[in-house]
Amino acid sequence: MTSHADSPRLDPGVAEELRGIVGTEYVCTSADQLQRYSQCTIPWQSLCAAVVFPASAEEVAGVVRVAARHRIQLWPSSTGRNWGYGTTLAVEDGAIVMILERMNRILEVNDELAYAVIEPGVSYEQFNAHLRSKGYKLWIDCTDGSGQGSVIGNALERGIGETPYGDHFGNLCGLEVVLPDGELVHIGGATSGLKTWHTHKWGVGPYLEGMFTQSNFGIITRAGIWLMPKPESYNSFVYEIRDEEHLPKVLDAFRRLALSGVVNTKLHMINDFVSMTILTQRISEQIPQDGPMTDSDLQALRRKYGISPWNCAGGIYGTRAQVRLQRSLLREALTPYGRLIFISDRLLPLLEGVIERAWKNPLFRRLTELVARTSLPVLESAPYVHKILQGIPTEYFVRHAYYRYRHPRPQQAIQPARDRCGLIWFAPILPFTNSHVWPYLDTCRKRFAAHGFDFYVAMLLMNPRSVVCLMAVIYDKDDANETAHSKLLYEELLDDMRGQQLQQYRAGLQSWQTVFADAPELQRLNEKIKTALDPANILAPGHYGIAYPQALAADRQQNGHER
Amino acid sequence: MTSHADSPRLDPGVAEELRGIVGTEYVCTSADQLQRYSQCTIPWQSLCAAVVFPASAEEVAGVVRVAARHRIQLWPSSTGRNWGYGTTLAVEDGAIVMILERMNRILEVNDELAYAVIEPGVSYEQFNAHLRSKGYKLWIDCTDGSGQGSVIGNALERGIGETPYGDHFGNLCGLEVVLPDGELVHIGGATSGLKTWHTHKWGVGPYLEGMFTQSNFGIITRAGIWLMPKPESYNSFVYEIRDEEHLPKVLDAFRRLALSGVVNTKLHMINDFVSMTILTQRISEQIPQDGPMTDSDLQALRRKYGISPWNCAGGIYGTRAQVRLQRSLLREALTPYGRLIFISDRLLPLLEGVIERAWKNPLFRRLTELVARTSLPVLESAPYVHKILQGIPTEYFVRHAYYRYRHPRPQQAIQPARDRCGLIWFAPILPFTNSHVWPYLDTCRKRFAAHGFDFYVAMLLMNPRSVVCLMAVIYDKDDANETAHSKLLYEELLDDMRGQQLQQYRAGLQSWQTVFADAPELQRLNEKIKTALDPANILAPGHYGIAYPQALAADRQQNGHER
Repeated sequence: MTSHADSPRLDPGVAEELRGIVGTEYVCTSADQLQRYSQCTIPWQSLCAAVVFPASAEEVAGVVRVAARHRIQLWPSSTGRNWGYGTTLAVEDGAIVMILERMNRILEVNDELAYAVIEPGVSYEQFNAHLRSKGYKLWIDCTDGSGQGSVIGNALERGIGETPYGDHFGNLCGLEVVLPDGELVHIGGATSGLKTWHTHKWGVGPYLEGMFTQSNFGIITRAGIWLMPKPESYNSFVYEIRDEEHLPKVLDAFRRLALSGVVNTKLHMINDFVSMTILTQRISEQIPQDGPMTDSDLQALRRKYGISPWNCAGGIYGTRAQVRLQRSLLREALTPYGRLIFISDRLLPLLEGVIERAWKNPLFRRLTELVARTSLPVLESAPYVHKILQGIPTEYFVRHAYYRYRHPRPQQAIQPARDRCGLIWFAPILPFTNSHVWPYLDTCRKRFAAHGFDFYVAMLLMNPRSVVCLMAVIYDKDDANETAHSKLLYEELLDDMRGQQLQQYRAGLQSWQTVFADAPELQRLNEKIKTALDPANILAPGHYGIAYPQALAADRQQNGHER
Repeated sequence: MTSHADSPRLDPGVAEELRGIVGTEYVCTSADQLQRYSQCTIPWQSLCAAVVFPASAEEVAGVVRVAARHRIQLWPSSTGRNWGYGTTLAVEDGAIVMILERMNRILEVNDELAYAVIEPGVSYEQFNAHLRSKGYKLWIDCTDGSGQGSVIGNALERGIGETPYGDHFGNLCGLEVVLPDGELVHIGGATSGLKTWHTHKWGVGPYLEGMFTQSNFGIITRAGIWLMPKPESYNSFVYEIRDEEHLPKVLDAFRRLALSGVVNTKLHMINDFVSMTILTQRISEQIPQDGPMTDSDLQALRRKYGISPWNCAGGIYGTRAQVRLQRSLLREALTPYGRLIFISDRLLPLLEGVIERAWKNPLFRRLTELVARTSLPVLESAPYVHKILQGIPTEYFVRHAYYRYRHPRPQQAIQPARDRCGLIWFAPILPFTNSHVWPYLDTCRKRFAAHGFDFYVAMLLMNPRSVVCLMAVIYDKDDANETAHSKLLYEELLDDMRGQQLQQYRAGLQSWQTVFADAPELQRLNEKIKTALDPANILAPGHYGIAYPQALAADRQQNGHER
């Protein structure tokens, strides 16, 4: 890590200009403060020269103009919770990082048309709390990541959540954008006002919203977002596949259920190791404290926690009769291959009561675990699954980042980047068929093992035809060897993926240089647009590989791509 | 209309170059041929200088390069069936019109992942026939327009169909595009191949597909399209609202049903006049042969044909149990306000048998009409509704264009542009609430009446939050007065719409100049992209208002905007 003394300096005159726009206390240039925004869980570091916190689109435009005038790179971030992908890190040192967390107004909630208009600083927790406390009959869709994460930030990264509204970008409608020249545009609308701005996604003329996602063409300062009307009835379900031989039949069943609309949530399928990272830490178990678990260690932990090789979770929503029917359709399709359990809002408090009592009473715990055919820690996760599938965020699942952490993980204020947890997300997307998924996962599993890592994979349905195979490289940042291997593994995963004519659904900073390596014609198209909108290349150069700093690219090619 | 002698000429050298690319017989320059591609049903005319018919993306790129070299405008069109919006008409005379109807290959059908890859010349009829004859268990979504229309062409105009796959652009996935510089790009993919090109719509990096719809930034030469797996069970339904006082309650019910996913088709709600235009012609009825019908004429025709003031149609799809449940949910929500009739595949042949017999036997007809509480012509339309909601196209509904035609309409080979039918589509989109819809429709109805036209409005659900209020100005092209009034009415409708802060979901040639009139910042953004990709402004200048020919714009401002 670069020491504080190396921090790039911002010209004092520029800092003064920025202070004039956002206010003195909202421009940070001290080494300590800069350090805080130079952290991520990935093995990468870049130091910014300043952090600014604008409070409005006008202030954002002002900052953009200052950056352009002085030709300083500007890296916008909603709230900076994008752990494992790069958070607020720029590709190069010396950028102005712009955090939009002060812009956290919920500007409109429309109950009749089931949408809201929010700013990029609005977090899942805030959004959910607002709707519930004001009595709106609308649910948000959150991720199983931090409740402090930005709703808009995740959607602009095209993140996936949980419910039928889990395609977060797909449910944005109407963006306010500050362009690299400082101009404010209502994409799909008109700054003079348009009644369908937040109800009709495509607008009229070229549909341009999409080009402002996973890109560096503009800064989103406000967005409409469609919300799920609270259904009459809701059940979550968990589904355990105890025999891996059934996986192909399960996958076929889920594809058919998704294509026919019976499953319309983002359906998560996780392997056993994903469960372990939530339930425990390496330091707490009688397993080797470096390298991957052996098969027998894994078996032992499976037994200890009552975990199946694969677990799935999803939700069903509708009228009472619809939910009943969906339950029977799921049962018919899935019970031949595993155990399917439904949790209703009625069952939830009972379950929570049992869990609470079981923690206190060892005998009752034994009994409960016998009846439930699993462990209390696994049981304990069910209410979190149930809540997240109705848009209630939790920090519970973020604990996975601490699996190789050397100390007991914190129980609250979970902040993996601050705590120097090592985690890289690798998120390839595949056609949702057996012939695509399983051979590919086998290759990846071997790569993980060869570098000393346990294989972490969660499959998330992007749509009925595509599945994200989300892998986490969880490593110990204070172990130089593990850190080096995390980088090598990531490189190999990227290479394998490209060799298989696959791509990520969402790319971390370490992979940006190769995002368009196999599509030079698309790269050229993006560069043409970038040049037209941002000729001085001020806005996040290199984000998703567009306008990647040339010197840096050449340097990395020669010297390997890490410092 | 401009006479043949006025046809703009293409330089013989350029024609020779084009012939070298697409073949001699696929470059048309004779006045007769040019005339054929200078027709639409709108009161507008522009004469092209040549029509070319490339057979491949490579030939398209070749034509683009020739046009660029000689600075001649190039107007691409899939099959040219975009009646009422402008078909193949360029904004200015002298363009090369490029028709892609020879590119009509179905390149791939994937039964497992429910998608196909097709070229822009593939028509609904061809696509549906292909899937059914090869035994695929996949349904297309068509419109109620011509079965000869291009599947891709409609999707690029962001047209709406009928089934849960009725958002045609929303179900495109993976575009092959020839850019204005002749480069071939796989949007969302890679020309070297990508396995999720047709399964994951967003790709990685900026999502750019949308910018090639309703625009002039490139020419789509191939696209992936998601298809509906044939459901276990299907019912169509028709719903008659006999008392207009119930309309607000019906709209609220439909919004709730759509938001909760019970209604997931594009749900058409049509007024009585729409039904009349399908069932009859003005010349066949005892009503004034000019001007709009009086209220009593309308009442008389309603009675004659047994038509309700409003009629709706939609489909329900799923397992047998799901369809049963949806029927009961629809019944519960809708029967208090009108008559709801379901048609199943089992009922269909019985119904067709009754209709056939009723046409032959007057007594049986009387009996049938009494029992059905409607007329035989209305009954006869039900099987077409049923078929179209399972992707089987028909020319049946295109007959509306002939309502004011002076001769009996043709029974087949329906081609309104060839037959000089007068029809302008006006397609504003509104938030789907009572407070937005009804006052606006009242204003429009009065405008129609003031100019001597009957009020034609079909409401199509774009999504649960937005409804397209599709209006047709049907006029007699051989009546100069009616033609003049059609233009004036259209102007006023446009002005009203803009005054109400509304826009069209899809815009016809006559309105392109005003598409961005209320969003100059969006116009500038589009122009920047246009300039970056097409600096010589070769590709469809003025399409959707982008890079509208300046001289023409100024001229129109001075002299009114029609010739």
